[in-house]
Amino acid sequence: MFQLSLVGIGSGNPEHLTLQAIRVLESADIILLPRKGDAKTELADLRRMIASDVLKTQPKIVEFDYPVRDADTPKYLDGVNTWHDALATIWGGLIDAHAPKDGHIALMVWGDPSLYDSTLRIADRLLAQGLEIDVQVVPGITSLQMLTAAHAIPLNTLGAPVQITTGRRLRDFGWPEGVDTIAVMLDGENSFQSLAPEGYDIWWGAYVGMPGQILLAGELATIGPEIIQTRAEAREQHGWIMDIYLIRKR
Amino acid sequence: MFQLSLVGIGSGNPEHLTLQAIRVLESADIILLPRKGDAKTELADLRRMIASDVLKTQPKIVEFDYPVRDADTPKYLDGVNTWHDALATIWGGLIDAHAPKDGHIALMVWGDPSLYDSTLRIADRLLAQGLEIDVQVVPGITSLQMLTAAHAIPLNTLGAPVQITTGRRLRDFGWPEGVDTIAVMLDGENSFQSLAPEGYDIWWGAYVGMPGQILLAGELATIGPEIIQTRAEAREQHGWIMDIYLIRKR
Repeated sequence: MFQLSLVGIGSGNPEHLTLQAIRVLESADIILLPRKGDAKTELADLRRMIASDVLKTQPKIVEFDYPVRDADTPKYLDGVNTWHDALATIWGGLIDAHAPKDGHIALMVWGDPSLYDSTLRIADRLLAQGLEIDVQVVPGITSLQMLTAAHAIPLNTLGAPVQITTGRRLRDFGWPEGVDTIAVMLDGENSFQSLAPEGYDIWWGAYVGMPGQILLAGELATIGPEIIQTRAEAREQHGWIMDIYLIRKR
Repeated sequence: MFQLSLVGIGSGNPEHLTLQAIRVLESADIILLPRKGDAKTELADLRRMIASDVLKTQPKIVEFDYPVRDADTPKYLDGVNTWHDALATIWGGLIDAHAPKDGHIALMVWGDPSLYDSTLRIADRLLAQGLEIDVQVVPGITSLQMLTAAHAIPLNTLGAPVQITTGRRLRDFGWPEGVDTIAVMLDGENSFQSLAPEGYDIWWGAYVGMPGQILLAGELATIGPEIIQTRAEAREQHGWIMDIYLIRKR
């Protein structure tokens, strides 16, 4: 039986690696390293740097190209599922070609494998295909935790709930009932614009934890336009952007 | 100006410390260490062990007793606010008595300082009282992340939202609208019993990340009673319990 470790590596700052993440990566026989996740070369570079500079052992690094997700698939979830199938086929082939018998394969996962990440779903596909693997998850610091740490704010107000959601959900369904705080991830479209901006505060961050980190916070009505402009300029300059934000009703 | 670092230390496993958490704790002049948070001696012991065994420097450890929160205060939030006031007074006194001029004070925070934790609110009170402090937050692995890692499950279903909430909220307001997954924290009363149990799956964990970790998962209707019994027995045996769970609509 193979061991497959999905290792959360945090959100851009190698200092956010946990001692467990380092130990598990060091004990791997091979590390599968995606080369072009979303064309974000800096993310692949960070993974390479961790492998070469942080680990005290030298697991075999097996790089692979991400399949391109077909954004034209009529239903969003169908496109994602097809993409996960393709990734499972790639992982299976790489394990077959490169892992020793009963070997230990590791993947470095951006953030934490539990939060808006595909790797557990891909591992489930390998299990369903009959590959004998024992899956281990190593938690990592998420970009949401980096955001709240960078702004030095709590996620929740006292004893109150928080909804973690996506830009798509905010656009399609508006402010969710029953919560005064939402954290928005996977938003490529400044979806906070779908809210009537009065009565909200926003804490926004891009490239959180990375050297190019940008933070903005204030009343949504006031700072919203500045966020949109800053985001557009940063995306133009870097060629890509990852951002995240928290909004609270006042 | 003092520097105050609120350092997330994870949820019971010292291997969940990040490199940043270790570096920041090592650079502190003093570490304030609560002696009896909720009479959970094992938690204070873990903090002492981190200070003595993990850190390569020897910051001065200043232990203090937690004030007891008055559970009889008519309004829950009033009781918590009074308790935070008392803690701020204690911190202020300890900083005054023990920290060098412009010194660096650190606190080890269970989990992550952003999630159902009081330390940022207490730091705000010190700022409001005019103490000149620069507050830094170091994120840590939460018990929620430990739970999903231990069960090897994602927090969210594909592209879907998640609500993080409390046992009290679940009892008082029922299942929140618009989400198929909730994570329940701060629940001393098996509040999942307030749901009609058909149609839900639950992933439960107690002492997650600690040597005594207990995990149970399955259909709520089937496993709910076993969770209640296991929890009661574990609480009796340890003298305290910390548990957390995820429930998903099927």
